[in-house]
Amino acid sequence: MGRTSDARQKILGAARSLIEGRGYTALGVAEICKAAGVPKGSFYYFFESKEALALTVVDEHWVAQQRDWARILGGDAQPLQRLRQLFEETEAGLLAGQQGCGTVAGCLFGNLSLELSNQTEAVRGRLQEIFDAQVDMVEAVVAEAQDRGDVTVTDSGEAARAVVAQLEGQVLFAKLYNSTQRLSPLWNNCRALLGATGP
Amino acid sequence: MGRTSDARQKILGAARSLIEGRGYTALGVAEICKAAGVPKGSFYYFFESKEALALTVVDEHWVAQQRDWARILGGDAQPLQRLRQLFEETEAGLLAGQQGCGTVAGCLFGNLSLELSNQTEAVRGRLQEIFDAQVDMVEAVVAEAQDRGDVTVTDSGEAARAVVAQLEGQVLFAKLYNSTQRLSPLWNNCRALLGATGP
Repeated sequence: MGRTSDARQKILGAARSLIEGRGYTALGVAEICKAAGVPKGSFYYFFESKEALALTVVDEHWVAQQRDWARILGGDAQPLQRLRQLFEETEAGLLAGQQGCGTVAGCLFGNLSLELSNQTEAVRGRLQEIFDAQVDMVEAVVAEAQDRGDVTVTDSGEAARAVVAQLEGQVLFAKLYNSTQRLSPLWNNCRALLGATGP
Repeated sequence: MGRTSDARQKILGAARSLIEGRGYTALGVAEICKAAGVPKGSFYYFFESKEALALTVVDEHWVAQQRDWARILGGDAQPLQRLRQLFEETEAGLLAGQQGCGTVAGCLFGNLSLELSNQTEAVRGRLQEIFDAQVDMVEAVVAEAQDRGDVTVTDSGEAARAVVAQLEGQVLFAKLYNSTQRLSPLWNNCRALLGATGP
């Protein structure tokens, strides 16, 4: 059992890294298994298909990211400061990845949204759920900020979608320009989008 | 000559449509030629490589889009109204495409940024130039709005990058949710990002 689950994790790790490097579509099962160092037969023991693998990669990444977002956005700091912390930790995470592999990986969900949303409905549906959940988490913080009079925006849902869109857009540019500094204006832009009343 | 340049355009048209449908990486030259209805030999008569084709697809798309942006952003309307018109025409263009093929294609440059920026430096460089040009065009309008006192934002370059990032982020969501309505809040979000003083 120990070795079996080890092979599954190796496949997932290799797939994640290959997908980040050059996308999902061009990837073959043989290549994933070679990178993972496992026999090709074991792939289909763990995953029905390449699509099933993609869904698992997405789910595992979201489990980790959701935990981070919940810790930050559910913290004790003032609502807007929690959003600021989210941006700062996102920038720091991308920077750490860049220092490891030389390039800014961007957002796995955004990358797959643009690559796959017109190809597999299963992945599209899962990515929609994930971005819906991200928007819900941000909206809860915006609503708290509204209650405190920290922001002037009235539609908390639309405001949360704008904040997440701004995050995805700037992460896209961080990847394209291979510079995490593209994320530095997120805090000011977020304050503008929400109509922040304080400093 | 007529038939020759016709073959080139057929290859470009097929490549553009296949790239929009399922990205660049998984695409083969044979498949592009089949879709274009031209013999495979003619591909290498017109293009040195698949990368050269990608650069040409990007360039042709930018020539057309730059002309549209210049017409809109260099128009006679008040500065902020020109930005509004840019968002409305972008939404209308994506809607027309969706009505034709059933799906929101998104932004070719954004799609390729996420798919290719860590794979080919030539395409990355070209996409950087295009987004730089987009930001410059928006910044010129923001500067005009600043001169008129229509906005409170002070850093016109950063503001323009925020507007273009918001556009890319919302277009990503329009593609993921296959709904051009995701672009409707762009105008309000842009006004917030710029600190618009008027209605």
